[in-house]
Amino acid sequence: MDKKTCLEKLRLVGVLAFATVDAGGNPQIRNISALHYEPEAVYFFTARGKNFCQELCRDGRVQVLGYTKYNEMIRLSGTAVLVEEGEQKKWIDTIFTEQPYLANVYPGDTRDIGIIFCIRDAQIEYFNLGAHPIFRECYTLGKGKITPKGFVITEQCVGCGACVKVCPQNCIREGAPYKIVQEHCLHCGACAECCPAKAVRRLG
Amino acid sequence: MDKKTCLEKLRLVGVLAFATVDAGGNPQIRNISALHYEPEAVYFFTARGKNFCQELCRDGRVQVLGYTKYNEMIRLSGTAVLVEEGEQKKWIDTIFTEQPYLANVYPGDTRDIGIIFCIRDAQIEYFNLGAHPIFRECYTLGKGKITPKGFVITEQCVGCGACVKVCPQNCIREGAPYKIVQEHCLHCGACAECCPAKAVRRLG
Repeated sequence: MDKKTCLEKLRLVGVLAFATVDAGGNPQIRNISALHYEPEAVYFFTARGKNFCQELCRDGRVQVLGYTKYNEMIRLSGTAVLVEEGEQKKWIDTIFTEQPYLANVYPGDTRDIGIIFCIRDAQIEYFNLGAHPIFRECYTLGKGKITPKGFVITEQCVGCGACVKVCPQNCIREGAPYKIVQEHCLHCGACAECCPAKAVRRLG
Repeated sequence: MDKKTCLEKLRLVGVLAFATVDAGGNPQIRNISALHYEPEAVYFFTARGKNFCQELCRDGRVQVLGYTKYNEMIRLSGTAVLVEEGEQKKWIDTIFTEQPYLANVYPGDTRDIGIIFCIRDAQIEYFNLGAHPIFRECYTLGKGKITPKGFVITEQCVGCGACVKVCPQNCIREGAPYKIVQEHCLHCGACAECCPAKAVRRLG
């Protein structure tokens, strides 16, 4: 997998889930299909009166999730920024051309209540729960950074092998220390719970 | 639509998006299909080591979103609570029976790293963007409360009709004051922006 393929897969999914945090610290989630993809950015349309718009203007942090028909999860974690004034109309019209159903929701000039945000910097996480073993990988978009997640076995490992026995994905390899094959790890934490030497450290 | 139908529709969607907020205030979203529905509650499985579990234990606020094949969005906003110790195994086994693919991800006893949370109190929002006009409705689960959203026209209305002309869904009716038909409202905010009397108030 790669970044370009992930974005293309998201485009094919069509309807994505966007999560933000509101002023009260509550998780907020909604579906968005009014999207346009550029090679290094995702543009999306919402309306200026929506709480979603308020949340993005207050704190642009957003996570975007798509689930493909091949049971892959693709997640973007980044910042949504307001597109500059002079470019707003161009992207609104682009999205309305690509997504004809939008003209039924916002007929004629009523699309003028629209506003365009863009995600240029993001972490992209690819996660395939249907593969054996499961498979995950991370990429970056723009200045996005990869946040380490999951678990790692430290030098405190005593080599007892207890973690190997409980790993659902059989993704821990012998060694000094033992090693988690990160791309096949569920992040379930079974290894950390069972380690008698407390050698398994949570990342992130 | 009603609460029961919404839950049944979510069950048929299968894979839902769950949003939480992490300790750093970041939105977090992931797909969950390890679910079991009771008439008045939704049970779900995750693993004790996952960040998702940490977020739920720290702050149970969660939003759950499903997108049906009929282009309906169904959203639960509520609190996820840890199911009591003595009931954990029963629900894990129920979910693994209903979702056979889980035994591929967590074979044999490795499912013991699982943990079950339950949503009993929630607001349910139904939103159909494909209907003409669009349609929305809210219901409650358990002690869930409906949070008013969108806009309302107050007594300051001067009856000029400007809002009627800009409403994409044509859902504002004449009167003193004019009135927004809430079940057909996009929450786009066009009426609020154009009102010369500032009579349109944001809810929530």
